[in-house]
Amino acid sequence: MAQNIYDDPQFFAKYSQLPRQIHGLEGAPEWCAVKAMMPPLQGKHVADLGCGFGWASRWMRQNGAASVIGYDLSQNMVNRARTDTYDDAIDYRIADLNTLELPPHSFDLIYSALAFHYVEDFDRIIDTIHRALIPGGELIFTIEHPIFMAASQPNWIEDDQGRKTWPVNGYAIEGERRTNWFADGVLKYHRMLGTTLNTLIRNGFQIDRVEEFAPAEKQIKENPNLAEELERPMMLLIGAHAC
Amino acid sequence: MAQNIYDDPQFFAKYSQLPRQIHGLEGAPEWCAVKAMMPPLQGKHVADLGCGFGWASRWMRQNGAASVIGYDLSQNMVNRARTDTYDDAIDYRIADLNTLELPPHSFDLIYSALAFHYVEDFDRIIDTIHRALIPGGELIFTIEHPIFMAASQPNWIEDDQGRKTWPVNGYAIEGERRTNWFADGVLKYHRMLGTTLNTLIRNGFQIDRVEEFAPAEKQIKENPNLAEELERPMMLLIGAHAC
Repeated sequence: MAQNIYDDPQFFAKYSQLPRQIHGLEGAPEWCAVKAMMPPLQGKHVADLGCGFGWASRWMRQNGAASVIGYDLSQNMVNRARTDTYDDAIDYRIADLNTLELPPHSFDLIYSALAFHYVEDFDRIIDTIHRALIPGGELIFTIEHPIFMAASQPNWIEDDQGRKTWPVNGYAIEGERRTNWFADGVLKYHRMLGTTLNTLIRNGFQIDRVEEFAPAEKQIKENPNLAEELERPMMLLIGAHAC
Repeated sequence: MAQNIYDDPQFFAKYSQLPRQIHGLEGAPEWCAVKAMMPPLQGKHVADLGCGFGWASRWMRQNGAASVIGYDLSQNMVNRARTDTYDDAIDYRIADLNTLELPPHSFDLIYSALAFHYVEDFDRIIDTIHRALIPGGELIFTIEHPIFMAASQPNWIEDDQGRKTWPVNGYAIEGERRTNWFADGVLKYHRMLGTTLNTLIRNGFQIDRVEEFAPAEKQIKENPNLAEELERPMMLLIGAHAC
């Protein structure tokens, strides 16, 4: 059973104030890079794992998907999705990605944004996804980048010349990471980038694209805080298809 | 034209004292991981790009390769290879990987150890390799890991709890890196891991394996200095095949 931090009222109140929750997909700097990886959606049957408020589910539906099932662990999230991003071809369901079962050969596309780093057994979820996709079906997901997640103290430091620098330690030591993010002890699972890719390959996926999100010059001009994302990647975007 | 630091006499004298040069492949901690990625070699025609003293060329020949062509920029290296790792089916040649031409559809396997980070135009060398491989032919290579290469000051630091920590900055800013390693201003080229993988995919390779080398417990027991390799990966090992 996953830690369900999103149903902690204080966490949820603060989380809901993030720009990406207030402004939806356009509030997420990596969205344009994710969108560029999306296949044509017309007539597609899609699952959205860790759908949150349903922003991406609704976007996929508005861009032609025939049906979307959005899964999320949090009752708060699913409640908000059912009201804020309602669509009669979207089905929002409560589900724990650690124990999720999916119907076999049922989806053309499985999408997941910033959810898999909460999943302890990555091999299990990838096997589940592979069996749920049609042959040639696509998996597109984002996770926190392992460079961002590895360190025991994941906070900016300065190098010996005073440059803004991200600390990396324990990179090869995979497993639990506890951080304080709107609440103390939020539980995530660190995996090496190689582990993530090899798990996909071992389960029958072919890797199509690996993006370590970095903001474009235009984005930095509009939001100078994003400049620090050039120093170290915070998000990893992966596209793969089922062989 | 690449910087030919290996023909600088002082650099070469110091470089030749590295354990991996004195002890050959067994002196390189990542060799067991590289070996595990090697396909059966029996009867194969192989190119070794940046062959150095020829340790791997000779190993591949001893393990069944029908022929090996070892390419290196450095006259020093090729001279040593021709005497120390002589074999009548190995042809050691001087070549700059930045301008290398290879005969089309000529190799079953192309191997390269710790050389591609000296190559400015990665797309060109990967295209050259793809055209030189037979369909289904394999590319196996190691490079310095971009986590290791990115920072402007790539030296161990301490985090705010005194833990040995590797600095990352400028990760998304690809291109030249100058470091002092046996000589001042050794020139290498930093690329994001995503760029490396996407370049392979775009040129017609399918990714088979991505290893971020970390030493095994047994290796650390024998050589406690290796423990720091758990904190951040120094080497990246990639296996792919030509589609």
